[in-house]
Amino acid sequence: MHPLRIVLVSPRNPLNIGAAARAMSNFGFFEMRLVNPYEVAFREAKSAVKSQRVLDEAVEFPTLADAVADCALVIGTTSRGPRTLEHPLRRLETAGRLIAKKLTTAPVALLFGSEKFGLSNEDLSHCHWLTRIPTREEHGSMNLGQSVAVCLYEIIRQPSAARAVPKDARFPPAAAELERLTSRLEEVLDLSGYVHGDVKGSTELKLRRLIRRMDPDTHDAEIWLGMLRQIRWKLLNFKEK
Amino acid sequence: MHPLRIVLVSPRNPLNIGAAARAMSNFGFFEMRLVNPYEVAFREAKSAVKSQRVLDEAVEFPTLADAVADCALVIGTTSRGPRTLEHPLRRLETAGRLIAKKLTTAPVALLFGSEKFGLSNEDLSHCHWLTRIPTREEHGSMNLGQSVAVCLYEIIRQPSAARAVPKDARFPPAAAELERLTSRLEEVLDLSGYVHGDVKGSTELKLRRLIRRMDPDTHDAEIWLGMLRQIRWKLLNFKEK
Repeated sequence: MHPLRIVLVSPRNPLNIGAAARAMSNFGFFEMRLVNPYEVAFREAKSAVKSQRVLDEAVEFPTLADAVADCALVIGTTSRGPRTLEHPLRRLETAGRLIAKKLTTAPVALLFGSEKFGLSNEDLSHCHWLTRIPTREEHGSMNLGQSVAVCLYEIIRQPSAARAVPKDARFPPAAAELERLTSRLEEVLDLSGYVHGDVKGSTELKLRRLIRRMDPDTHDAEIWLGMLRQIRWKLLNFKEK
Repeated sequence: MHPLRIVLVSPRNPLNIGAAARAMSNFGFFEMRLVNPYEVAFREAKSAVKSQRVLDEAVEFPTLADAVADCALVIGTTSRGPRTLEHPLRRLETAGRLIAKKLTTAPVALLFGSEKFGLSNEDLSHCHWLTRIPTREEHGSMNLGQSVAVCLYEIIRQPSAARAVPKDARFPPAAAELERLTSRLEEVLDLSGYVHGDVKGSTELKLRRLIRRMDPDTHDAEIWLGMLRQIRWKLLNFKEK
């Protein structure tokens, strides 16, 4: 994999630079580049200890052209709609796949603009195309650190994990154990006066279905059996006052 | 769609509550619930004007059981690995699909723990299952506001958008226009002395392929034609000094 370079253009808030660094570290990206950062913000950027590597290795560039010079694909992020843009605009779902694919052959730059104004038209002219996180139209603009996190998540996301049926770590009990559970429950209900003699047969069927719907794993079936055993013992030794 | 309730358990930092509210507003979720928030944090939580609705409507509950009482599915978020957990754990890609599906029939609660400790074992015991954002093992713990943003993005994400071929808004020029462009470029290169007579044939083929690889749309092809026309005019009127 080639590096993905996260380029922050004119960031103003040290908390946001720190948050971007943390998200990068969380998702395994380490190359941060800064263009025209508010100096105080850059120096004051703090983050959890584990993100320090990203901030320590962050490089400042005089111009955006310099910051993306060694990248084969340059993508800008925007919260604006397609009508105000001169560039092709792709939803993040698509952009993430294209960026991940490109990273197998060449370095890519992903650009984020300042908190207040986003990327300027001058900044955007350096981009091959733009991407937009699919936020609500009425409230499109995301916090800088959050949008970095969402974009990186989409890039490392594994589509196969979404399609996969969740692995079932449970050990389903054999039918015999479910049947034992059913009988024990029936016995306890019988002892407690829940079951009347004339509906005994239909109650048995109802209980059998109830236990199957409960679908306990082996461990839980054992816990239920133990509880019922204890209740049965108590009921058998119960003396009516 | 039924509501997705974002439940923050024991949040401590007002900036994080504000950031969670902003992400919720960005992605169109408005029901925030708080359990045992640090009171000062809740009162001081600030956010962009557009997220104010989420904070204004946020409801505080005395216990987690109360906060999730009306939800048919309760999911906890964790950065811990499956080995330390008693619950089924699903990657966010899977969890997002399951939550989105459940929301078509019933309300769902998504739980986030405190910044420092996450959800306690007592909190987790209220959950049907847990989900984990696929962060690096060495730095798994995400910022609260960022993890809310990433989870909500996964839920509103449209898988079809990723599979879709990006819509091509471009108008590709007809072959005739590309051929006109090729000829005009060749003529300009000829006039400027770039093309030598003996390789004229192979140059024409090279230029034709060059223009096709460039793959301009109709608009850009016109711009190129205009530029070449002007250069041609200048070259024809050029007098060697």
